[in-house]
Amino acid sequence: MLELRLVQGSLLKKVLEAIKDLVNDANFDCSATGFSLQAMDSSHVALVALLLRSEGFEHYRCDRNLSMGMNLNNMSKMLKCAGNDDIITIKADDGSDTVTFMFESPNQDKIADFEMKLMDIDSEHLGIPEAEYQAIVRMPSSEFARICRDLSSIGDTVVISATKEGVRFSTRGDIGAANIICRQNTTVDKPEEATIIEMQEPVSLTFALRYMNSFTKATPLSNTVTISLSSDLPVVVEYKIAEMGYIRFYLAPKIEDEEEETKPQT
Amino acid sequence: MLELRLVQGSLLKKVLEAIKDLVNDANFDCSATGFSLQAMDSSHVALVALLLRSEGFEHYRCDRNLSMGMNLNNMSKMLKCAGNDDIITIKADDGSDTVTFMFESPNQDKIADFEMKLMDIDSEHLGIPEAEYQAIVRMPSSEFARICRDLSSIGDTVVISATKEGVRFSTRGDIGAANIICRQNTTVDKPEEATIIEMQEPVSLTFALRYMNSFTKATPLSNTVTISLSSDLPVVVEYKIAEMGYIRFYLAPKIEDEEEETKPQT
Amino acid sequence: MLELRLVQGSLLKKVLEAIKDLVNDANFDCSATGFSLQAMDSSHVALVALLLRSEGFEHYRCDRNLSMGMNLNNMSKMLKCAGNDDIITIKADDGSDTVTFMFESPNQDKIADFEMKLMDIDSEHLGIPEAEYQAIVRMPSSEFARICRDLSSIGDTVVISATKEGVRFSTRGDIGAANIICRQNTTVDKPEEATIIEMQEPVSLTFALRYMNSFTKATPLSNTVTISLSSDLPVVVEYKIAEMGYIRFYLAPKIEDEEEETKPQT
Repeated sequence: MLELRLVQGSLLKKVLEAIKDLVNDANFDCSATGFSLQAMDSSHVALVALLLRSEGFEHYRCDRNLSMGMNLNNMSKMLKCAGNDDIITIKADDGSDTVTFMFESPNQDKIADFEMKLMDIDSEHLGIPEAEYQAIVRMPSSEFARICRDLSSIGDTVVISATKEGVRFSTRGDIGAANIICRQNTTVDKPEEATIIEMQEPVSLTFALRYMNSFTKATPLSNTVTISLSSDLPVVVEYKIAEMGYIRFYLAPKIEDEEEETKPQT
Repeated sequence: MLELRLVQGSLLKKVLEAIKDLVNDANFDCSATGFSLQAMDSSHVALVALLLRSEGFEHYRCDRNLSMGMNLNNMSKMLKCAGNDDIITIKADDGSDTVTFMFESPNQDKIADFEMKLMDIDSEHLGIPEAEYQAIVRMPSSEFARICRDLSSIGDTVVISATKEGVRFSTRGDIGAANIICRQNTTVDKPEEATIIEMQEPVSLTFALRYMNSFTKATPLSNTVTISLSSDLPVVVEYKIAEMGYIRFYLAPKIEDEEEETKPQT
Repeated sequence: MLELRLVQGSLLKKVLEAIKDLVNDANFDCSATGFSLQAMDSSHVALVALLLRSEGFEHYRCDRNLSMGMNLNNMSKMLKCAGNDDIITIKADDGSDTVTFMFESPNQDKIADFEMKLMDIDSEHLGIPEAEYQAIVRMPSSEFARICRDLSSIGDTVVISATKEGVRFSTRGDIGAANIICRQNTTVDKPEEATIIEMQEPVSLTFALRYMNSFTKATPLSNTVTISLSSDLPVVVEYKIAEMGYIRFYLAPKIEDEEEETKPQT
């Protein structure tokens, strides 16, 4: 039997909004340590990894490891029916082919049960090794989202270049070219507004903007985003989920002759 | 001659928004007692009844009973041109084939006259007998609107079941099932947030969600909605219009073998 | 070499939003006196004239007169990437076929360069003679925008009639007719809320609402709009740009047998 009670139910709503456009169907894995998901996007280019640790739930009961295949679009439809202040409880009986989402309004006057059919989904869990990154950029998540959206109006790919001074985002398209530089800045009033670059060595990598824009759907989950860059490793775009875990997106860089210069793609 | 001056002109704007999607053309009936409308929706399934009592108008002159056929979509286009704080006056000369809507801005600097052609509409006025209902539910109108909208993402029909403890809204569709229970709650800070059930006997009836969602277009007119339920009687969904009257929607229940269980419909 | 630094960069964003739907491609002319544009709309019916005087820029360097052909839609895409509080600098090297828009965030942490290709555009600069107008109406720009939008839901043309008492906007269409009168009103709390009519003689002219609605895209640039009317002269719809210049739209009146009465047009 599974029963996971999350007081801040809006977190789960935001998690679904962050991944449902990228992934259609996925297995949620429940164990004693937490509620997690690992899935490739539908075109098998990007990888999403989600972890909500058991300590973050008000009540967490998971008698045995359970993998529940869900259609994320349907799950999102149901979670949209939860109020932003509702407590959400995920319930499943052992061997059942359904999962129930229970929404309780803060004053307990309204109780909703949404029962969803589970699916059988083939998936293999990839081991993601810990890696050393040449540069790790931490910046305001809304700034990163804005930059990805802005560059998309000019080109299809973004070159992300990190140096000690700052991080540069560049693109090029039919109508022209764009360069946006965010300077390292640690002396801000609010820590979440800082832009911090941890450098081992300068790095410059090219990515499809379409995927970056998908990742930024997770922006409401966290004030900051961490971008970990290394040549020949997938970039990791991570949004921390307050005191509970994270959502991480992995995307392989594009290989180009001149990494500094992106070309319009069709 | 007809001249009806409504200081709170936004009420009339909201009335039109509440009914224009349900009804295309309708007769507005003016008499000494008030300004009223009764009309079937275009598929002849639901009935709308509107009453704005003469006392609610700042000035109300209606020399003789008058029935004015209007295209509600065109009338809505014109009323959208009134500011939310405008005073609206409805004017018609005896025997004229037009009606004039006059909009005065609060400071009288802007005066607008919109003249609309009237239509001949055949309609018979149905007598709606007063009835005893097995259960009458009063609840916040925004809550009812939210529930109807939420359930529409799962199924096509809603079972409304009233007991002394509360009212339950259920649906079922391809992706799963949903149950939402609103408990009776009279001890709230604001009276309009109460959920109150007047019970003669428990009742459980099934309705098409499409119509319920149309009815909730009247939500801006009132903080609360009253739902009157009896087996074999149309449900009445009523929104009071402050100190002036009401808008009431009538809809016959669906007959099903097992009323407790709705099935997806095409 | 050209380098124009505009602290209030949002002005340039608003200018582009005001004209990009009316004009596709246009030459921006830079001289010692200012940054200007004159262009016909794509159907060659309306004329736009923009002036941003050099004194309004924080830094204004223009070594020689320069005419830069730009696609306004592409330019708008780039300016949308500037934050509302950003400082915008327009840069071009002599003989270059590109222009660069630089956006600096207020705290200088984010610097963006957008480089756009220039175009060769044939255009002749029309001399617009100073003229005496029979009536000049100054009114709140948002009120004028609202009136044009409202009347568009009824008819295709607007008759603008100015008298000493006020200005009247009328239209007529399939569903009826509308008249909106704005009374002269100089005794308002805020000067920008006044409606003032400078009259030589009464005038009544008919215009296509489609263009008037396009002109009102400039509403965010100014609290007031000035409408200059004379029989047999194009109307001038002018939005002042605070301490920098203006954007003016010119449109010829429609000639009709009865000017007072507009007829639906296809």
